[in-house]
Amino acid sequence: MDAAQLYEQIKKKKSFLCVGLDADSSKIPVHLKQHEFALFEFNRRIIDATFDLAIAYKPNIAFYECLGTAGWHQLELTIRHIREHYPDIMIIADAKRGDIGNTSKKYADTFFSHLQCDAVTVAPYMGSDSVQPFLEFPGKWTIVLALTSNQGADDFQMQGAGHQERLFETVLRTSSRWGTPDNMMFVVGATRASMLVKVREIVPDHFLLIPGVGAQGGDLAEVANYGMNKQCGLIVNSSRAILYADGTERFAEAAREVARETQGQMREILEKRL
Amino acid sequence: MDAAQLYEQIKKKKSFLCVGLDADSSKIPVHLKQHEFALFEFNRRIIDATFDLAIAYKPNIAFYECLGTAGWHQLELTIRHIREHYPDIMIIADAKRGDIGNTSKKYADTFFSHLQCDAVTVAPYMGSDSVQPFLEFPGKWTIVLALTSNQGADDFQMQGAGHQERLFETVLRTSSRWGTPDNMMFVVGATRASMLVKVREIVPDHFLLIPGVGAQGGDLAEVANYGMNKQCGLIVNSSRAILYADGTERFAEAAREVARETQGQMREILEKRL
Repeated sequence: MDAAQLYEQIKKKKSFLCVGLDADSSKIPVHLKQHEFALFEFNRRIIDATFDLAIAYKPNIAFYECLGTAGWHQLELTIRHIREHYPDIMIIADAKRGDIGNTSKKYADTFFSHLQCDAVTVAPYMGSDSVQPFLEFPGKWTIVLALTSNQGADDFQMQGAGHQERLFETVLRTSSRWGTPDNMMFVVGATRASMLVKVREIVPDHFLLIPGVGAQGGDLAEVANYGMNKQCGLIVNSSRAILYADGTERFAEAAREVARETQGQMREILEKRL
Repeated sequence: MDAAQLYEQIKKKKSFLCVGLDADSSKIPVHLKQHEFALFEFNRRIIDATFDLAIAYKPNIAFYECLGTAGWHQLELTIRHIREHYPDIMIIADAKRGDIGNTSKKYADTFFSHLQCDAVTVAPYMGSDSVQPFLEFPGKWTIVLALTSNQGADDFQMQGAGHQERLFETVLRTSSRWGTPDNMMFVVGATRASMLVKVREIVPDHFLLIPGVGAQGGDLAEVANYGMNKQCGLIVNSSRAILYADGTERFAEAAREVARETQGQMREILEKRL
């Protein structure tokens, strides 16, 4: 899936919503906990209730990994379900991996070959040869952390680096040279929407993956205002606000209602701006 | 295990060797490939052949993850084998994780609660609240990436940050305040041994995990010269040079010979300096 195909999906669905699959065994509805594969059951119903409103699903790998093999199995089932039933939807492995070359190659194998995801998030701290192995998979996307939505982004990302620019700017400027707008995106947190002006100066054409709308407090209109480009260029993620909208047997309907409301706002923005 | 207990192990074994368990399905001896759990079989024999020479084992999570549930199962078997037979040896999950707080909490659960490792490597890019959840596990170690052994370290880690110091210095200075020398270590690559002088100015008392000796070309005497402190303060990792010393049925004996040679050098260094 290249950038043009992604933009086609956005126009068709009038949505740039990504649903984050942070399936948490302690937060899913009680009645699901009897299932052998409770996280997968939860995900399956969330996905079946939102597939026409979202252009991407983003399983957060930590939430599966913490259950060991049982968690990995449910991650595999979840991805297989999306692949089989909704083949046009992008699957983003939110993994934030990155290591020396031969190890990053293994992580790229994990998410692109074994799990058949379309995209994976990577941490830039170890530099070019830690990111390059991900970029070598044709048709896949590498999503580099630039400016994250959490408080801790102030510790290093917002600090001045070489030539007095801040580290996240250096990361954008340097790492955007490693790939193209057809195989690379950047994570920019919605909680720092005003920074999108600076981000767009450096990477006008790349898609941005924007977490932090919903439970983390980011504002969709602001994000669109500062971050949208001519091909939309945004994938906005919402996880907890959708997944845990309701804790009863009607959790999937409630999730759909929240997703539909967000997609409604996105439709309005897209109609106005594109 | 606190720093004093770790130092006791080092004195007892006259070794500060960590064996990296980068078990690669494409590199293990052919005769092992018939085993259902070939990576575990490989690890088990490497561990049984080196346990008295090493103070730590460091499974590299990517090498298991790339096989999905089958890989995770073999990672679990490997850790269980060490825990059951060699309870004094430190187990370091080389995972390089790091995410927003609620997600880092899940990763900490994965490696400390589910897998029962003693330590985990984390990436600092997302700042304090991405590292803090790891530090909240009593008796466990958080090992923060500072200056890595790969070429890509030049891209960001070696660049000037606030007040003109380089990013790895800022990371050391800032993140060392989040924990103590009893629950935090730093990764500093052996391929940049001369930088250890600067590292020791900032963190004189912390243990350092040093990868890059062996296949990556780092020099043990140099590392000890620049990096050792009064309680040794070094854990030096070797992976490929030990694991793949020989590709035949005597791979474990060959691994032991290389490990013994490295431990012999360490013994000499320890006897001279401490």
